[in-house]
Amino acid sequence: MASGTRELTVDLGERSYPIYIGTGLIAQLGEKFAERGFPVKSPILLVTDSAVEGLYASAVEESLRARGYTVARAVVPSGEASKSLEMLDTLVEQALKAGLDRKSTVIALGGGVVGDLAGFVAASYMRGVRFVQIPTTILAHDSSVGGKVAVNHRLAKNIIGAFHQPEFVLYDLDTLASLPMREVRAGLSEVIKHGLIWNAEFVAWCDDNAERLLGLDPDALGYALYEGCKVKSIVVSRDERENDLRAILNLGHTIGHALEAVAGYGELLHGEAIAIGMVGSARLAGRFGYAADIEETTERIFRKFGLPVRIPESCPTDEIMSAMLHDKKFSEGNMVFVVPTAIGSVEIRRDVPSAWVTDIVNGLREGK
Amino acid sequence: MASGTRELTVDLGERSYPIYIGTGLIAQLGEKFAERGFPVKSPILLVTDSAVEGLYASAVEESLRARGYTVARAVVPSGEASKSLEMLDTLVEQALKAGLDRKSTVIALGGGVVGDLAGFVAASYMRGVRFVQIPTTILAHDSSVGGKVAVNHRLAKNIIGAFHQPEFVLYDLDTLASLPMREVRAGLSEVIKHGLIWNAEFVAWCDDNAERLLGLDPDALGYALYEGCKVKSIVVSRDERENDLRAILNLGHTIGHALEAVAGYGELLHGEAIAIGMVGSARLAGRFGYAADIEETTERIFRKFGLPVRIPESCPTDEIMSAMLHDKKFSEGNMVFVVPTAIGSVEIRRDVPSAWVTDIVNGLREGK
Ligand SMILES: NC(=O)c1ccc[n+]([C@@H]2O[C@H](COP(=O)([O-])OP(=O)(O)OC[C@H]3O[C@@H](n4cnc5c(N)ncnc54)[C@H](O)[C@@H]3O)[C@@H](O)[C@H]2O)c1
Ligand SMILES: NC(=O)c1ccc[n+]([C@@H]2O[C@H](COP(=O)([O-])OP(=O)(O)OC[C@H]3O[C@@H](n4cnc5c(N)ncnc54)[C@H](O)[C@@H]3O)[C@@H](O)[C@H]2O)c1
Ligand SMILES: [Zn+2]
Ligand SMILES: [Zn+2]
Repeated sequence: MASGTRELTVDLGERSYPIYIGTGLIAQLGEKFAERGFPVKSPILLVTDSAVEGLYASAVEESLRARGYTVARAVVPSGEASKSLEMLDTLVEQALKAGLDRKSTVIALGGGVVGDLAGFVAASYMRGVRFVQIPTTILAHDSSVGGKVAVNHRLAKNIIGAFHQPEFVLYDLDTLASLPMREVRAGLSEVIKHGLIWNAEFVAWCDDNAERLLGLDPDALGYALYEGCKVKSIVVSRDERENDLRAILNLGHTIGHALEAVAGYGELLHGEAIAIGMVGSARLAGRFGYAADIEETTERIFRKFGLPVRIPESCPTDEIMSAMLHDKKFSEGNMVFVVPTAIGSVEIRRDVPSAWVTDIVNGLREGK
Repeated sequence: MASGTRELTVDLGERSYPIYIGTGLIAQLGEKFAERGFPVKSPILLVTDSAVEGLYASAVEESLRARGYTVARAVVPSGEASKSLEMLDTLVEQALKAGLDRKSTVIALGGGVVGDLAGFVAASYMRGVRFVQIPTTILAHDSSVGGKVAVNHRLAKNIIGAFHQPEFVLYDLDTLASLPMREVRAGLSEVIKHGLIWNAEFVAWCDDNAERLLGLDPDALGYALYEGCKVKSIVVSRDERENDLRAILNLGHTIGHALEAVAGYGELLHGEAIAIGMVGSARLAGRFGYAADIEETTERIFRKFGLPVRIPESCPTDEIMSAMLHDKKFSEGNMVFVVPTAIGSVEIRRDVPSAWVTDIVNGLREGK
């Protein structure tokens, strides 16, 4: 491992796995495969997207080939639409043609889209083969912990999937240099979320280090991704199959998901939508009588990172409300909110009056 | 439970589940759901096929509705072609429209096709919901144990799937009355296979009770299905994720699968193809010097059950051989055979000379 590499273990009993975070890691991928005894006889499928392929696929392949591995490359179009059953079908075809067997590995090289899609291929091909993730976005720190993999159905996001833990995650910070700035900010929104639900000190650190993070300083970024993954990892370890605790990870997501749906997928990035949602949750905290600094701090920090904190004009309140009510059928009849009780801690509330929510959504407008 | 109901536990730690085998069981389904605390608020998806729907779907629904459950019915065309990603897409759409949530159940009412397909829906919808099987074929005793669920890809059978254990299996023998006689015989082939790999006494019992079994005598059938499920259950309990021991379940399948592929899927039923395959394996046993009565007994018993014991003219030896060689890539380069060492026990051989196989395939012809 290069000096400065951080290592974190996601603790899930016999499905535990390490996340390596640092620079220059792709060059060491083949070594990692060999150390862990991945069989050279079994071909590897490298799944990536059209934006990432030209940048990093060859380096990944070279690293593996240098250790004697056979790699087939599968490229999907960049974007959420690739998380589909049609793409699963195509990738399975490529896996078959490349001769993948039960001891083969599927590698995801890309953001959360490639991670979720390739992860579901790994979960279902021959009823499950090895999976390795090489995240190339900041947001993907989130999907690199917890083993949730899925594709979308035209009627619902992430509705067809599995829990399938990777063998390991290799987070090479060098790949983040090419990420569009808007994606950087949106990814950091989810990093900050992990602070807000669990770790006040880390929130303060992000606040103090905004400039280094936005400048992609490897040491600051490595530390932030490590802390973000750690919070998620603690939560997931205690609740692998998503019962109760894991729900706290949805801070800002009740409003955020509704905004994404109403704005039209792609208009608002996920990280942007949940930044607005987290400001909304902070206002809910105020209604419940929790300290007023929650709202002030939450809003200030997201502004500092250049993230939106107000609902766009294109999203009328009634549509947002009905999108949220539509969502509720997935949680047995109640709107569920994650509400901060202080910076660094939250609680789950199923008793939020919908009038409060309407008020808050109305209030979260430019100029208010 | 009705008197005469047999109960077997498939022992898989926290994923253990019971199989109930007997008559009049569908009427008790609602009661079973209630006893086990399946929530009435969460809708149920009943998946069945076009041949089974008109016969038993209403009885299943009535039994559940009498206990307050909401059931949506989803019907797929009868036949192997329904095990597809397209059908998964359609069923997920129906599940969404019916409002299925994380606490919902998917029920498979039908043979192995419906079981495998509905099981994969249950495994992947919202990353996994409850699954209950109501097998209506004899062959499905096999798929009711082990949790293997899957759909096909146009390039390979059962290639996209999961391990997803049911909550329980309700084997109502009354449903078997409508099964075409050819399906009865083919299903019994797999029952006898379970005897041949594990239990010589049970093979002798099948031999003595062929007439009762073919006449669908409920007591004989209940016993045979119980014993068949028990053998499979012992094997999978010791090897849930299919490593080594589980391979013994493939007695007759190396040749059998090749015959199915060459004859064209649907020409030979699976149970018919493996009957021929088991006669082939018995001949292999002879080559390895095991007792000659293996071959004699194997062939006699399948003849008695009206199953084919010779390879059809439409399957040339070279095509069978190449189908088998094509299969081998899934097991790292060696043709794998399950070879009987006596009636009731087998061993796995990776050292079978392909010349022996060619000989045996050539020899398994009408008139020889
Ligand atoms: N499984 C989970 O637990 C989990 C958690 C959070 C999000 N997700 C999923 O993740 C997805 C969003 O992830 P994302 O934001 O990473 O999206 P993404 O994968 O679409 O990546 C964002 C964009 O950046 C491009 N890109 C990626 N890496 C790049 C790089 N290094 N340089 C230049 N361009 C690059 C991509 O092509 C894409 O256009 C969603 O589908 C979401 O459902 C899953
Ligand atoms: N998951 C496993 O472990 C496992 C094991 C063995 C086989 N399988 C799968 O099972 C499938 C074969 O199972 P099958 O033989 O039950 O096939 P099937 O489900 O196609 O049923 C055979 C035929 O009988 C009809 N039928 C079913 N029940 C009936 C009834 N009670 N009355 C009248 N008609 C009825 C069906 O419509 C169909 O036409 C294959 O797809 C195979 O891959 C899975
Ligand atoms: Zn999120
Ligand atoms: Zn079989």
